[in-house]
Amino acid sequence: MTMKNYAVVGGDKRCALLAELLAKSGNSVHAYALDKYNLSDAIVKKPSLASLKDKYDCVLLPLPLQIEAGYLNAPFSINTYLLDDVFSLFPPGQKVVAGKVPHSLFEKAGRLGVALFDYLEREEFSVSNAIPSAEGAIQIALEKLPITLNRANCLILGNGRIGKVLSQYLAGFGAKVCVSARKYADFAWISAFGNTPLPTGDLTGKISGFDVVFNTIPRLVLDEKLLRELKPEALIIDLASSPGGVDLFAAKELDREVVWALSLPGKAAPLTAAEIMMTTVQNILEEWGYGK
Amino acid sequence: MTMKNYAVVGGDKRCALLAELLAKSGNSVHAYALDKYNLSDAIVKKPSLASLKDKYDCVLLPLPLQIEAGYLNAPFSINTYLLDDVFSLFPPGQKVVAGKVPHSLFEKAGRLGVALFDYLEREEFSVSNAIPSAEGAIQIALEKLPITLNRANCLILGNGRIGKVLSQYLAGFGAKVCVSARKYADFAWISAFGNTPLPTGDLTGKISGFDVVFNTIPRLVLDEKLLRELKPEALIIDLASSPGGVDLFAAKELDREVVWALSLPGKAAPLTAAEIMMTTVQNILEEWGYGK
Amino acid sequence: MTMKNYAVVGGDKRCALLAELLAKSGNSVHAYALDKYNLSDAIVKKPSLASLKDKYDCVLLPLPLQIEAGYLNAPFSINTYLLDDVFSLFPPGQKVVAGKVPHSLFEKAGRLGVALFDYLEREEFSVSNAIPSAEGAIQIALEKLPITLNRANCLILGNGRIGKVLSQYLAGFGAKVCVSARKYADFAWISAFGNTPLPTGDLTGKISGFDVVFNTIPRLVLDEKLLRELKPEALIIDLASSPGGVDLFAAKELDREVVWALSLPGKAAPLTAAEIMMTTVQNILEEWGYGK
Amino acid sequence: MTMKNYAVVGGDKRCALLAELLAKSGNSVHAYALDKYNLSDAIVKKPSLASLKDKYDCVLLPLPLQIEAGYLNAPFSINTYLLDDVFSLFPPGQKVVAGKVPHSLFEKAGRLGVALFDYLEREEFSVSNAIPSAEGAIQIALEKLPITLNRANCLILGNGRIGKVLSQYLAGFGAKVCVSARKYADFAWISAFGNTPLPTGDLTGKISGFDVVFNTIPRLVLDEKLLRELKPEALIIDLASSPGGVDLFAAKELDREVVWALSLPGKAAPLTAAEIMMTTVQNILEEWGYGK
Repeated sequence: MTMKNYAVVGGDKRCALLAELLAKSGNSVHAYALDKYNLSDAIVKKPSLASLKDKYDCVLLPLPLQIEAGYLNAPFSINTYLLDDVFSLFPPGQKVVAGKVPHSLFEKAGRLGVALFDYLEREEFSVSNAIPSAEGAIQIALEKLPITLNRANCLILGNGRIGKVLSQYLAGFGAKVCVSARKYADFAWISAFGNTPLPTGDLTGKISGFDVVFNTIPRLVLDEKLLRELKPEALIIDLASSPGGVDLFAAKELDREVVWALSLPGKAAPLTAAEIMMTTVQNILEEWGYGK
Repeated sequence: MTMKNYAVVGGDKRCALLAELLAKSGNSVHAYALDKYNLSDAIVKKPSLASLKDKYDCVLLPLPLQIEAGYLNAPFSINTYLLDDVFSLFPPGQKVVAGKVPHSLFEKAGRLGVALFDYLEREEFSVSNAIPSAEGAIQIALEKLPITLNRANCLILGNGRIGKVLSQYLAGFGAKVCVSARKYADFAWISAFGNTPLPTGDLTGKISGFDVVFNTIPRLVLDEKLLRELKPEALIIDLASSPGGVDLFAAKELDREVVWALSLPGKAAPLTAAEIMMTTVQNILEEWGYGK
Repeated sequence: MTMKNYAVVGGDKRCALLAELLAKSGNSVHAYALDKYNLSDAIVKKPSLASLKDKYDCVLLPLPLQIEAGYLNAPFSINTYLLDDVFSLFPPGQKVVAGKVPHSLFEKAGRLGVALFDYLEREEFSVSNAIPSAEGAIQIALEKLPITLNRANCLILGNGRIGKVLSQYLAGFGAKVCVSARKYADFAWISAFGNTPLPTGDLTGKISGFDVVFNTIPRLVLDEKLLRELKPEALIIDLASSPGGVDLFAAKELDREVVWALSLPGKAAPLTAAEIMMTTVQNILEEWGYGK
Repeated sequence: MTMKNYAVVGGDKRCALLAELLAKSGNSVHAYALDKYNLSDAIVKKPSLASLKDKYDCVLLPLPLQIEAGYLNAPFSINTYLLDDVFSLFPPGQKVVAGKVPHSLFEKAGRLGVALFDYLEREEFSVSNAIPSAEGAIQIALEKLPITLNRANCLILGNGRIGKVLSQYLAGFGAKVCVSARKYADFAWISAFGNTPLPTGDLTGKISGFDVVFNTIPRLVLDEKLLRELKPEALIIDLASSPGGVDLFAAKELDREVVWALSLPGKAAPLTAAEIMMTTVQNILEEWGYGK
């Protein structure tokens, strides 16, 4: 790619590492709202957001863009910033990439003539992040289980991106892997890769033998009845974003161990997570018409 | 499933085995246009198509339905049958499953009130058949290559169903597997499973090192220029249906070895292929409202 | 197996879990020198060693038998015990299994007519423990590396039991795995399983690209020269028992991150580690002439 | 390696390809008793054995050295040669490598001052050849089985070199793989790699479910009783050298399908098999004191 002029605004360690990676690749990088992170000298640190008025080839906002509604997600800044104020600074035509953008901000961006893109609309971003998510889940299982994954009975709920990658990596340990799904085609995929399919809608009576259950489905699957069927020492790792897939109240009552693991890519492999962001930004820019 | 009343009409060994499997599972099975195949006593052999006028729970036609246009694909029959004549026999409401049904027959079925379903519209059918296809492709490679798959440099063109399964099975031998794709998301999938992605549109200069190339893309990919780049002893296995993905004329001129392998499931694993048909038929019937 | 009468004497969590597993399998189990561990009611707790004078089917001592030379390894006891005193209690003919038994104690046992066996003389014990060791090593890598194991460049020094298992499990993540060995036959094994062999004696100039190095060789391999060649951010995980395989002084000088991971089976998977002990004890007893 | 002066004497396609590989690597190669094979111009063809009196860096005899006792294995020669005559030609000190050398010839070589080495004494030769053997066995299974290896129930008798490699490659297809062994340590290895161990000595009552049995043990294992237990359609592939591991008479009586597959490396992957020979010869020469 030709070198570009980036602004990285706010965000967590993953965003800071993204800034470093972009600088290391020879780009010009300006950092805003990262004042508490110890960035290298290759990056220009900006004390205020004022110069976001200047046009950049691309402005990189965090993923997720906001944690408290309406405010920029900026854990490494001593200040707080209203997203409305941030967006008001951008010159018309500014290209901006952010993650988990609320509908209202897309509208605002449209009115301001700002070209706004969400990481999560990129299929390759989600697939790539399934890898550190799966590895993070395995790390938790290795830490928590008193038995080896080798020969452990593992159940993965859901054969989406994370389910597909996780089932493969678990099988690599010689674990016995069942994967639940709803579609016949998914049953065929699960069998093709040497694992055992189970119907998600019909788990009752089939899960008492599992040592560990990984949930990837973002709706209630492990209800009280199923939790009761699990053996008491089974470990549950919930990888689904809010509201998760486990009845946490029932799990507590029944004394089942549940680890709700969110935002694994940035935790399990922050550098790879930053590389995935960088690649995705470059793919977006390429499709927006920037040459290599 | 509750037992049912099937007619199996025409088709190759796979269809004959399908009839046997259905009978073995306790269904009532009537065979038409399979007179030269040595069917077991569990199956009622019908000397003519006349009693197709009777209603069956389901009539199973071949995959593909026709080889010569307009005629039933019936290699095990001493007679030939016009598809129009076959369809005219069915009573209104008859459920029929067939494969590669031409558009005109769907129209005819509609007019006759016949409920016609194509195997190929079922995603699970295609996924399941990717397994025997991949195994058949590996069998050809094992037969033809003078080197082991272990450490062989393998290129798979296309990361569709067959590409995904084949890449996994080849990697199981310790082969070095590259897979070509066009979408960024596919690159991520290929990497996630430990293989190396290549862009399908930009292969020039990158394929001289491969010992074997498996094509799964049903349009011309290996043109004269790419064929010339391959080393002379490289083996090409084309798994794509007509027109295939290899310039066969150029390959002959350049003395490159090409195996065009069609209809692998029925050849590589006819019993599994028949089981896949049976499962698919049962899934179709279930969704048409038959209970288990 | 027929039920037996065991004494479990001292040891860490793994030994305590071994006592529990034996009791759960229906054996009679007496615990000594485990007074601070919260054992279940199925186990008879003995306040002093005095009744070790009684004959048991088998007495199970810890692995390792001693940490401070001459003393029983008994971290869950409030007392300390001289091994000489413990052995003096055993009646002639007593069968005893222990781990890492010093030569002098074998002599003493011989004079006392005690039949003493070392876990570590059992090949199946060492092979089985390679599994939790490899999983523990992967856990450390997942925790420490900022990148994913998928596509990471991994070097394993040594193709012994742990090297063989670890290389396989790492490859399951889609990591790029090199394994060093000295013998031609090991090179062939490494290639057969799809990984890349390197000569242990000739690593100079070949290791600058690795993201993580796992050492399994119990003699100095990673000397200052090789450490200098590794990239600064490479992670080193030393799995070799004392004296280890890394020049720790040089590593500190060069600011290379080294994790010296000892006794992984008991830490990574204490329950599996206890099961391995139980299986080994049963195999020993079976060969000593006890029937099933 | 520095270039050397080789004589290749007799042998099958594998030996002819070995001659070609050595020539391609820049060595001087003289071919004897290969007159019917169409060798390239890079090789000097010798019309008689007379000039074997000249000293070569190494003389390469076939594997196996003899098929009919006392005669050189030379299927590509129009003549026959007594091994005694061949050995009488060698000058004292001649280095010779051959395969499956009978004891009497070692004696003769000793008396003549000929340095004779057997390929089969090299562990790396046997390990490397396990790869084409395993691939050849899988090729046969793919050709003969009417079902896919994916989800097939596979039994491998013996966890030696071929058993270890074959179990791994079969598992790569998503097959269900059991491996029989006699030692506890082998049970542990089999489990470590995700497969299921069975005791070789106690198979009765455990083998009725297998779709395919691969034997690697060179003594009678599948006797009439076990053959009777196998399901009628099970396929048996015997990879063990004479006398094999299957009661062929009983198998015929019971109408069980047995493929006795010998000398697979040269058949399944002749070029790789020749490369393995070349590497082994070079390793032998290196250890005999030739520098690289």
